Amino acid sequence: MKGFQFAGIRAGIKKKDQKDLALIYSDSPAVAAALFTRNKVVAAPVILGREKIKKGLCRAVLVNSGNANCFTGERGIEDARACSGLVAKGLDIPEDQVLVSSTGVIGAYLPMEKFDAGIPELIQALSENHMDDFAEAILTTDTRRKMVTETGSIQGKAFSITGIAKGSGMIRPDMATMLAFVLTDAKIEKEDLTAILTAVNERTFNRITVDGDTSTNDTLLALANGKSGALIHDPESKAVFQTVLEKVCQQLSKMIVRDGEGATKLVQIIVKGAKTKEDAFKASEAIAHSNLVKTAIYGEDPNWGRITAAAGRSGARVVTEKMDLYFDDQPLVLKGQWLGPDVEKEIARLMKKEEIFITLDLNLGQETDGFWFCDFSENYVKINAEYRS
Amino acid sequence: MKGFQFAGIRAGIKKKDQKDLALIYSDSPAVAAALFTRNKVVAAPVILGREKIKKGLCRAVLVNSGNANCFTGERGIEDARACSGLVAKGLDIPEDQVLVSSTGVIGAYLPMEKFDAGIPELIQALSENHMDDFAEAILTTDTRRKMVTETGSIQGKAFSITGIAKGSGMIRPDMATMLAFVLTDAKIEKEDLTAILTAVNERTFNRITVDGDTSTNDTLLALANGKSGALIHDPESKAVFQTVLEKVCQQLSKMIVRDGEGATKLVQIIVKGAKTKEDAFKASEAIAHSNLVKTAIYGEDPNWGRITAAAGRSGARVVTEKMDLYFDDQPLVLKGQWLGPDVEKEIARLMKKEEIFITLDLNLGQETDGFWFCDFSENYVKINAEYRS
Repeated sequence: MKGFQFAGIRAGIKKKDQKDLALIYSDSPAVAAALFTRNKVVAAPVILGREKIKKGLCRAVLVNSGNANCFTGERGIEDARACSGLVAKGLDIPEDQVLVSSTGVIGAYLPMEKFDAGIPELIQALSENHMDDFAEAILTTDTRRKMVTETGSIQGKAFSITGIAKGSGMIRPDMATMLAFVLTDAKIEKEDLTAILTAVNERTFNRITVDGDTSTNDTLLALANGKSGALIHDPESKAVFQTVLEKVCQQLSKMIVRDGEGATKLVQIIVKGAKTKEDAFKASEAIAHSNLVKTAIYGEDPNWGRITAAAGRSGARVVTEKMDLYFDDQPLVLKGQWLGPDVEKEIARLMKKEEIFITLDLNLGQETDGFWFCDFSENYVKINAEYRS
Repeated sequence: MKGFQFAGIRAGIKKKDQKDLALIYSDSPAVAAALFTRNKVVAAPVILGREKIKKGLCRAVLVNSGNANCFTGERGIEDARACSGLVAKGLDIPEDQVLVSSTGVIGAYLPMEKFDAGIPELIQALSENHMDDFAEAILTTDTRRKMVTETGSIQGKAFSITGIAKGSGMIRPDMATMLAFVLTDAKIEKEDLTAILTAVNERTFNRITVDGDTSTNDTLLALANGKSGALIHDPESKAVFQTVLEKVCQQLSKMIVRDGEGATKLVQIIVKGAKTKEDAFKASEAIAHSNLVKTAIYGEDPNWGRITAAAGRSGARVVTEKMDLYFDDQPLVLKGQWLGPDVEKEIARLMKKEEIFITLDLNLGQETDGFWFCDFSENYVKINAEYRS
């Protein structure tokens, strides 16, 4: 995409021999909108970011992995400020147009000497062709890069939206739930970008879960440099833009879940027929977060008792004798009646697939909601028991 | 304890060669109080039990493991009724004084032929000395029996309270969270027994978690046969009785957590200095349920960032710069400041113990709450992925 350059290098912040410092540079001031974690314990870069985003303009985004710069007090804020200062100086741009993001271990101070040495090298490496490096350098326990581009057009003018994300653990729907950067060459005002980003976030990143924990650093940032000339302003163009943005964010969301720590399967739960929207949300959220459901899916066991029991404890209105449960289009329970061992064996075979679709129809109303989530394997435990060692 | 007899046999309900049918018999009608699961999906024995307990008298309790008799519709209720009928007939007591409890797989019908054959054998086996057999036959994924007896005295008259419980997975504080049977020879009225049981339950079984799921069958049942002559009626005697009952239930609660599926450590989290009771509850509940906290404890890693982050997302009021965090009496974070790698290494050594005590002081008020929970190992996943196979 025209006007954006990228870099990703190894600065030595991570113990392992992996890239850990990344930069996006916009060659003109881009309109910026961002959503941050709702955790009350927030990292220094989020505290700074909330301030800086108010102006709505951004030239550069510095991201480090390996250290979250969280629970680091005043010194953490000073460190984050020093980082953006180094970027601003190196690129000769205003410091308040440099955003910083950090992800990694909580509670350690940033190793500033690595940033002193790394940032000039990073700026040297900037190129339109280095998006892969950026996408790699922001990863933590992720096993793969997460990038996607979609295009649309407004009155004959084509525009693109590219999304780059990281996220694998500490994922739950209580805000952006990871780091994600969305870049577009469309032309859009800050207020409109914020509104559309918020709506799309609610339907995508806020409907995925890996393990039910919310990060202290979650950030979803969108930059629009306007270079395509495609103007997003009237309702019709906003709808087009929102559709394309949702495609990008939906794909990134699913990539995050698919790459969930220890995950072997990607699962969608849809709860329909709920009396209220809130009931549909509560029931689907409880199922997507249940360790018992997730371990059963890992075991390829259609243990529908755990699914219905999770709905039952969720606080949503449910009536046992009204529930229908489907895997793909195959019913396993109808009106609270189990369809028997032969049907269940068939469904156990369906569960050998890598993508599993579960629908619970409460048959109490018209409302629907749903989540993408992953199964739960021994590997999740292994990854998280040994994370800092 | 005088007046109660027990039996536990293998009736063939479980696939494995294990005891699975159990009976308590009171030789006189005992005053009965019970608390049941708050899950909206409830098992047939709970539906029946809620009705029967209203009369407040009980002569016998039949318990089977291996099958929860849940999501079994009308047939499940008929089956549960047939079971209590068999017990009533065999013991020549009123059917409405026979309670039944089931625990095990959800969604399969009870194998009635096993009950037809097993119940007469069970009645034959009744003896004051067979409490061990009873405690063994009610287990599912538990690895050990859970029994405890405490005594007290009222105006020179000694009384005993014995508790027997099962529970290892699907444990969270949203009611009794397992099966537990409490027997006493104290003399107490139904209303008083219910009130004291409810208060004690809130402070014990409602403050433990293994995996955050709530069973469809949870039942806490208390029977008082009055044989000791110790009368619980005035405030003083009620206080004595409540203290003894709390000792019993507290020990059973800790036994359940210690025997949690895959657990290697028993952990207590206390959140103090909260602005409100609800804040203390929310923060401690979020920490006790966090998979990231639980896997870190399994890894003997004092990953305090995960603990404070869980408090931060809990909805409780927290201020990063005010938080103090202790392991045993050793601070690791004071006023939001990490005390450094040397202190952390010392605490990592503390974490090698089997019991770990964590205190988070929010320094915002006077309220305290807490939970007992366990760590989270690969074995939890293994047990639950393979549960039905």
